[in-house]
Amino acid sequence: MISTDPRSAVPHAPRLAQMRYELLTLGDELLLGLTPNGHLSFIGEELARRGVMLRRNVTITDDESAIARQFRESWASADVVITTGGLGPTCDDRTRESIAGVLGLELVFDHDIERTIAERFALLGRKMTPNNLKQAYRFNHGDVLPNANGTAPGLWVEKDGKVLCMLPGPPNELQPMFRDQVLPRLAALGLLLDGEAYVQVRSAGVGESLLETRLQPIFDRHGAALSIAYCAHAYQVDCRLSSPSGEIGLPQLHEIASECARLLGDDFMCFGHDSLAKVCADLLRAQEKRVAVAETATGGLLASSFTDICGASKFFAGACICYTNDARMLMLDVPESILQQHGAVSAEAAVAMATGAAEKLGADYGVAITGFSGPCCGSKENPVGTIYVALHAPQGVWSRQLSWPGPRRTVKPRAVNAALDWLRRELIRASRSTPASAERATG
Amino acid sequence: MISTDPRSAVPHAPRLAQMRYELLTLGDELLLGLTPNGHLSFIGEELARRGVMLRRNVTITDDESAIARQFRESWASADVVITTGGLGPTCDDRTRESIAGVLGLELVFDHDIERTIAERFALLGRKMTPNNLKQAYRFNHGDVLPNANGTAPGLWVEKDGKVLCMLPGPPNELQPMFRDQVLPRLAALGLLLDGEAYVQVRSAGVGESLLETRLQPIFDRHGAALSIAYCAHAYQVDCRLSSPSGEIGLPQLHEIASECARLLGDDFMCFGHDSLAKVCADLLRAQEKRVAVAETATGGLLASSFTDICGASKFFAGACICYTNDARMLMLDVPESILQQHGAVSAEAAVAMATGAAEKLGADYGVAITGFSGPCCGSKENPVGTIYVALHAPQGVWSRQLSWPGPRRTVKPRAVNAALDWLRRELIRASRSTPASAERATG
Repeated sequence: MISTDPRSAVPHAPRLAQMRYELLTLGDELLLGLTPNGHLSFIGEELARRGVMLRRNVTITDDESAIARQFRESWASADVVITTGGLGPTCDDRTRESIAGVLGLELVFDHDIERTIAERFALLGRKMTPNNLKQAYRFNHGDVLPNANGTAPGLWVEKDGKVLCMLPGPPNELQPMFRDQVLPRLAALGLLLDGEAYVQVRSAGVGESLLETRLQPIFDRHGAALSIAYCAHAYQVDCRLSSPSGEIGLPQLHEIASECARLLGDDFMCFGHDSLAKVCADLLRAQEKRVAVAETATGGLLASSFTDICGASKFFAGACICYTNDARMLMLDVPESILQQHGAVSAEAAVAMATGAAEKLGADYGVAITGFSGPCCGSKENPVGTIYVALHAPQGVWSRQLSWPGPRRTVKPRAVNAALDWLRRELIRASRSTPASAERATG
Repeated sequence: MISTDPRSAVPHAPRLAQMRYELLTLGDELLLGLTPNGHLSFIGEELARRGVMLRRNVTITDDESAIARQFRESWASADVVITTGGLGPTCDDRTRESIAGVLGLELVFDHDIERTIAERFALLGRKMTPNNLKQAYRFNHGDVLPNANGTAPGLWVEKDGKVLCMLPGPPNELQPMFRDQVLPRLAALGLLLDGEAYVQVRSAGVGESLLETRLQPIFDRHGAALSIAYCAHAYQVDCRLSSPSGEIGLPQLHEIASECARLLGDDFMCFGHDSLAKVCADLLRAQEKRVAVAETATGGLLASSFTDICGASKFFAGACICYTNDARMLMLDVPESILQQHGAVSAEAAVAMATGAAEKLGADYGVAITGFSGPCCGSKENPVGTIYVALHAPQGVWSRQLSWPGPRRTVKPRAVNAALDWLRRELIRASRSTPASAERATG
């Protein structure tokens, strides 16, 4: 429950752990499986970073009576209710009306909102149809949350000791509104932490149970005040350090995390949420080196992971995705004799591809992935799931054989992450010659 | 409500429309935003294809009392409740116990399940820890749903005129169980259609409102018996034809869909759910042609969309992702004079890249995408979001300028789909010379 006494608004985690946050995601497109429920992932993660776990997410249809029924139930049991969607201009956007009915509020026409909507249409050079004015209705109680990227503003109501926050559905509208307006308002009310709730140590190339075994002696020294959570992704495991009781402050959590990083050595990847490609990119930029890529089995996924990073041309020379032996020979200078003797899915071909990519694309490092990612096209010597990765570095060139069972959609990202992790380790080794960058790499 | 009289089990849509299906997705990882809720997308779409729309999806924590509270509420109002997750071997997998309590059922140890689990561990050469035996408990009522890809079987209960179906969380276990066991069981009870509920006409490169205007005259002839739903994705719009009353049978729906396809001409993409890359791949295979790709702004996404298709080497020669002018010159033979005069983001460079990709990789078609996908790195002449696409075909080579505002993650797939759609249209034009393949292309 919200207190309006500012002295009671100092966040402390035991109270936060009692808070009931509910997320209502509205829209037939979610229930029909046409659109993934990205709002749950986004809002769930943002709240967790501030020390609050969503208690429930309910997805229902746009139907007015269904919204009213669900909202009534959610409002009765939750402290904070966040709704997404159903605020647009068309006739199936009935969220405002439904919820006003349940809360006993009135909808009033707001001329400021009307002006903002009209200005936005003028700016885009588009004609405003009359149904857009529906978005200018607000409750006769509470605040309007401006929407910098769309026409439907959000609504904020504090009532019955609870908070209601209504946000528009498009992610590019919702996400900045949530970060810039909703989180600060919730923090000001003491409903979540003002800063990060945990410190994350991200590791790569180590299994979850081995990581736990190695880190536990550090954690044991801090007893029950320290809370630890592990989460495994493809080829990386996160370890989240927090102190729900508040006994261990954020600076001390950072110290413990640094101790973990030192203990893990090269298995430590980063603090926070960076991807393997981002960590490699930072190492490459710091050393003013570039990487080039040659792929078959992963078909562009490795290249795409680098080019998702803005300013990729600073550290990424390019990639060649070769599906024929002719292309391997012509684009990457892979010798025909290697392809004939060992085949395209072989350690020898992977080494030639990595070197060819680095040399032809003018890069310092070359990473090659070749193999069968399934479900068809394996051979007896190299069944589906067999992958060869090669790394060309200024210090030499090596290859490794990897093998995973499982479907194509899990084999591809695992192979990409295994290759990226190898590059990361080689870049750290190379950076050891320059003390400054070595320090940066190991935190 | 379920009738056990087989004569009443004939599915007809008006009854299906009343059916309340609820999906309970269990797991802290969903609420913390660590894992996207793919079960909602998968199960929502599978049910929609069989004429049923999920009424509600509730995501809650693994906590035993929270599961019991939510399940009690869902069971009271729904006809079919599907749960996912919480059936594993560890102590936080409490779904069976919670739900047994609500339904007044007992958990009994099943030696058949135990044997199956032990066999699976033996097959994988792994040691079975004792906690795995937890998965051998079943209700004293209802059926066990075998799990071919994991140790936790599903459970099926018919009780109080309702159905409960409990499935394990890993998608590679859940999805085949849902398709092969759950859908047929629900169909046998008359709780969903035995076959497809709608016929989908997929179009590319046409806006939703224009598509509606063009198709409406066809639909008008069939009156209220025909139901139409539109859904827009990046660069394509789907139109779903169904007859909820059952007045128009599936063969006639297919006829109406064919009429739409003929009217749309080259704007018709396919029936069903194929991707643009898959449609291009089928056209290329039918004409025994290959395509090569050159990318900058989309950084491997176009190549990845082709290589996601199994057997890509039959129609895909390869791709070159060039982030430096040196690479463009060396790998794709782009003349230095073009890069100096027009820059790498230009129609001229796009044309040279498409031709270079086709010629160097030995392909019949070449597709090039160059541009700024944002958020940084635009220029005054070519602001962020400016994309040039070029198509090299046996008949000639052309370029087009495209421009979208918006974030990188929406610009990239739109540019890729625009390029794929252009290739698709060119392949259809080329196929017109051979009547057989032209017929295939226009359905």
